[in-house]
Amino acid sequence: MKTQVAIIGGGPSGLLLSQLLHKQGIDSVVLERKTKDYVLSRIRAGVLERGLVGLLREAGCADRLDREGYTHDGTILSFEDTQIGIKFTDYVDETVIVYGQTEVTADLYAAREATGGTIEFNVADVVINDAKSDAPYVTYTVDGEARRIDCDFIAGCDGFHGVSRQTIPQDQRQEFEKTYPFGWLGILSETPPVSEELIYASSSRGFALCSMRNENLSRYYIQCSLDDQVENWSDDAFWDELKRRIPKEAADRLVTGPSIEKSIAPLRSFVCEPMQWGRLFLCGDAAHIVPPTGAKGLNTAASDVHYLYHALTDYYGEGDDTGIKTYSEKALARVWKAERFSWWMTSLLHQFPTQTPFDLKMQQAEINFLRTNKAAQAVLAQNYVGLPY
Amino acid sequence: MKTQVAIIGGGPSGLLLSQLLHKQGIDSVVLERKTKDYVLSRIRAGVLERGLVGLLREAGCADRLDREGYTHDGTILSFEDTQIGIKFTDYVDETVIVYGQTEVTADLYAAREATGGTIEFNVADVVINDAKSDAPYVTYTVDGEARRIDCDFIAGCDGFHGVSRQTIPQDQRQEFEKTYPFGWLGILSETPPVSEELIYASSSRGFALCSMRNENLSRYYIQCSLDDQVENWSDDAFWDELKRRIPKEAADRLVTGPSIEKSIAPLRSFVCEPMQWGRLFLCGDAAHIVPPTGAKGLNTAASDVHYLYHALTDYYGEGDDTGIKTYSEKALARVWKAERFSWWMTSLLHQFPTQTPFDLKMQQAEINFLRTNKAAQAVLAQNYVGLPY
Repeated sequence: MKTQVAIIGGGPSGLLLSQLLHKQGIDSVVLERKTKDYVLSRIRAGVLERGLVGLLREAGCADRLDREGYTHDGTILSFEDTQIGIKFTDYVDETVIVYGQTEVTADLYAAREATGGTIEFNVADVVINDAKSDAPYVTYTVDGEARRIDCDFIAGCDGFHGVSRQTIPQDQRQEFEKTYPFGWLGILSETPPVSEELIYASSSRGFALCSMRNENLSRYYIQCSLDDQVENWSDDAFWDELKRRIPKEAADRLVTGPSIEKSIAPLRSFVCEPMQWGRLFLCGDAAHIVPPTGAKGLNTAASDVHYLYHALTDYYGEGDDTGIKTYSEKALARVWKAERFSWWMTSLLHQFPTQTPFDLKMQQAEINFLRTNKAAQAVLAQNYVGLPY
Repeated sequence: MKTQVAIIGGGPSGLLLSQLLHKQGIDSVVLERKTKDYVLSRIRAGVLERGLVGLLREAGCADRLDREGYTHDGTILSFEDTQIGIKFTDYVDETVIVYGQTEVTADLYAAREATGGTIEFNVADVVINDAKSDAPYVTYTVDGEARRIDCDFIAGCDGFHGVSRQTIPQDQRQEFEKTYPFGWLGILSETPPVSEELIYASSSRGFALCSMRNENLSRYYIQCSLDDQVENWSDDAFWDELKRRIPKEAADRLVTGPSIEKSIAPLRSFVCEPMQWGRLFLCGDAAHIVPPTGAKGLNTAASDVHYLYHALTDYYGEGDDTGIKTYSEKALARVWKAERFSWWMTSLLHQFPTQTPFDLKMQQAEINFLRTNKAAQAVLAQNYVGLPY
């Protein structure tokens, strides 16, 4: 098989890139390790920056999002019972859209299928070959059968554990990492959200987040210890602990119900430099991970897709390889900004096992400063809605 | 002896409070452990917020400052050869004044002497008695002779090592502290400053600060290890190391010369809560220490003086004890903001021995963000010129 761009990974980054390229007449093939059902069952982020929404519109995949997504023009930070409402539109001419990543992925699959896109599922043994040459190719197997795709470029959209990043020799990449000494225990429940806006709650018992997917589907998280287990948390225990961490006024009106999903995720900051190796380009989790505080994971993947999409259209459309040559530098500049913001939000709002009383006072002082200082709120608002590409 | 306010400590806080009270017809006595010459030889900060300048004017001690002080409407942050000029007046209607703390103290002594203020030097064995009663008194000795001052209130302006804070029983105060794993090696030299504005320089070799007192008196600092010794640093070695840490453009025009003072100071964040115990009020270093990055030490002492001065004038002038009762709360609210800013500036610009490559990237990302983001610059500017009392 031949294509122009081989895309490793059928998550939202790979699909979005594939669909955007299709709209520009550039051919691609998407290789996905799992089944479509598996990919669609993954529960992930749900807060979309305008940059990502713009790309989805450009890809022709935003009709349902535009109908069903919820525009959020602010968010709430709380510390015990003190609430700080930050209205983004006081500071920036932008909002965010609440719309589940699962829905984004479903819309992208529907679009790729409607426009005849090639997606191979259940691929195994993926190997990226000759990425440093002008004629790279990808080999893989499906049900034990060996296959090969020759291509001009390879987009590595296969996540943190994928083969793409590993293809770059260790001595030619540098990895930056921070693991946080806690995780997030999250549940999904078919209950109305406690608040119209997300609540990022700091408390002496630890962090909590009140998020949502739609008017009858809520997503809640509580900071937990890294050695905690889902089995330790009945739904009742989860709701009780959540109520202790959010402002009383919110706890009093929280509607609880059975969880339909419950899981624990660790928190990690990670960046691989460079994000390009010959004709292989890393996108999204393949190159970087952010802790979920601040909802930058999918949005930062989208910024990579933006840079790579423009690099490839400039190359194929105008023979201009500037974008190709500067992809890593441009993508990383924005990645580090998102990493900084996610690290800051995480550091500000969580309880750290080794933090001293002074460290705790610094968190409180920062939250107090944010409560009263417009410029500090503007910094948060600009980062939260997404810095410009 | 009897007075209305006994002031322990004849540094700038105690003298400023004494002179301000005098202007309102409130009597005070200042007790100083050292000689006047000793106090005047101490070299300290040199960047005055407008709040402090306003208090000095109100005290009638700002004539020389207004003639000789240098108005700074901006500062420079650098990271290797990248310079970020932050002009305060782009964001706030305020500036800072460069004028040495030594000069402030000299002006305050001159004013207190001209207006017949009582200052006792060489006092020893100071004990604060009955601070929780309506009739507190201070006992002390001068040249072995026991003395006593009866008073209404006691202002503890005697610094970190003074007796005032120690007078509060340990179980009735809480102390918050952070020590930093480095110190500042500073020199004073009779050379013209390298830059019209202060340069706060981050570099892979560690932090450096280019500061000044006047057009022929410069103050420079370099981050050093805590076990370093002044004897390890010849003037030449200091200048060489300074040049490596500041932007090349600045290093090239640095005028060097013999040092007239050279010393190493550790960096510490410290706050005591509460700042009041009965009729004893802590002011300045007696209650809190900031690391010098951001020049908040003397300025935060001045904000305490502001609150205490107004509390005492309301009490004596109008019989209103609201300010007396809320002193600790009001003073601490602003103290913690200054602590936050000083901690942030210190964390941003220094090399930490245990920092990981990821931590270093976060520092760089924050500096990069500051370089391009107006709201982040506004936050720095507002804090640097001093948040409102």
